[in-house]
Amino acid sequence: MLKIERWRRSERVIFLTKALVERPHFLYPLGYFSQQLSAAKSSLSEDLALIKETLNQAGLGEVVTVSGAMGGVRYLPYLSPEREKNMLDDLAQKLSDPSRILPGGYLYMLDLIYDPYLIDRLGQIFARRFAHCQPDYIVTVETKGIPMATMTARAFNVPLVVIRNDSRVTEGSAVSINYVSGSSKKIGTMTLARRAIKPNSKVILIDDFMKAGGTAYGMMELMSEFNVKVEGVGVFISTAQPKQKKVKDYLSLLELVAIDDVSGLIDVRNRL
Amino acid sequence: MLKIERWRRSERVIFLTKALVERPHFLYPLGYFSQQLSAAKSSLSEDLALIKETLNQAGLGEVVTVSGAMGGVRYLPYLSPEREKNMLDDLAQKLSDPSRILPGGYLYMLDLIYDPYLIDRLGQIFARRFAHCQPDYIVTVETKGIPMATMTARAFNVPLVVIRNDSRVTEGSAVSINYVSGSSKKIGTMTLARRAIKPNSKVILIDDFMKAGGTAYGMMELMSEFNVKVEGVGVFISTAQPKQKKVKDYLSLLELVAIDDVSGLIDVRNRL
Repeated sequence: MLKIERWRRSERVIFLTKALVERPHFLYPLGYFSQQLSAAKSSLSEDLALIKETLNQAGLGEVVTVSGAMGGVRYLPYLSPEREKNMLDDLAQKLSDPSRILPGGYLYMLDLIYDPYLIDRLGQIFARRFAHCQPDYIVTVETKGIPMATMTARAFNVPLVVIRNDSRVTEGSAVSINYVSGSSKKIGTMTLARRAIKPNSKVILIDDFMKAGGTAYGMMELMSEFNVKVEGVGVFISTAQPKQKKVKDYLSLLELVAIDDVSGLIDVRNRL
Repeated sequence: MLKIERWRRSERVIFLTKALVERPHFLYPLGYFSQQLSAAKSSLSEDLALIKETLNQAGLGEVVTVSGAMGGVRYLPYLSPEREKNMLDDLAQKLSDPSRILPGGYLYMLDLIYDPYLIDRLGQIFARRFAHCQPDYIVTVETKGIPMATMTARAFNVPLVVIRNDSRVTEGSAVSINYVSGSSKKIGTMTLARRAIKPNSKVILIDDFMKAGGTAYGMMELMSEFNVKVEGVGVFISTAQPKQKKVKDYLSLLELVAIDDVSGLIDVRNRL
């Protein structure tokens, strides 16, 4: 029980809103709140209904009540379609700046994919779009996609799993596979510790970039070695070419339509 | 402006609490809230005072008001000393489980440092302890420390910077240094893109593990190449031996006092 002796409604909703928002997707048993706030469950139900209605009307997220003995209440972050569109349009515009073109025709985007608030919201978009998949883990491959995958794991309230590109890892017995990068045809290695993921789990793969899809395909192959089912693949940005990727179903937030380091041409579009 | 026409106090505090908590350390101008909620600043000040008092009394975080033209309000996450102690004691106990000992005397801790809610709170602890440093960036080195550093960056509301161990990165012109791993005496490479960090910035280094401190020392050397000032070094767990590390000042949350894969002895302690 907390220090406040007798909570008024407005204080209770502050406590409840804070708890729900800081831990997305976590199912709080009603008994937890009732004990913390020494409040009757009937009062709490009214408080939670008010929070639910307020957030819902303002398009700021969903509060879901699960009834029954194993029930409780959880918060699902939500960007309204309008806010989601504005955000991705704005990102597409930022990424279409010619100063981002690197030698070799690469795209500089570290400032965006390492911005914690931005990737927190991207994680919420992935969580929303893949909500039906109910993943047990969010899986990524090192390095640049890790922060975004961390935030997606946060939005889903499930553990993160990071596949390594190195077979010399010190994480106990591990499974390694070789894979062919779809675009450069180079052979790489992916390694994952045996105990990092439980067999028969469901996962979502998250990565920052997809060109030909070789990396995502390699991740799927590695997952099948673990008897794990890939329920979805999400990437921040994919290239328009090649049109045919090595993975069929994937969700890409942005599309790199053109980039050329000689002419300075760059074109990134919102793909949702 | 949002869809609700006329907000009552309890609805306003829900909106305000949500906005503050979901974006720690961000300074919201009062005018933003006043526009979103079509409320007078005087009402908002009362709402914010109530949130501040409620969270403060319950030991759940701080709401800080900054006055003046550039002023506003921000939320600083806070674990009460009691909750912080319980959490680190619990982690020390979990890590002291002999089943975590890997061949070669390594410690398995991926399940913990890839748990989004746990590392979110660890990030809050770092943010609290290093609050006086006012960093412009949180810097880490790939791979295992990235999720924790991401959450520390979130708690501080500053960008993350990830040093790579590979000089073949495609992020434009970069600075590389060689460094000597303090414990194994192996030579490694650290690379960072020129545009990843602005000169004359202040940073905090975050990593998951420290043995002799060679990696942290290498990071400090790389930072000095960027004319960046290291204001603090935070690690999740450090080893008791060697006692003398290559970096003098660092904050370690946990200490690995002993680990032996032959006898099965393992001892991890809360160091705060």
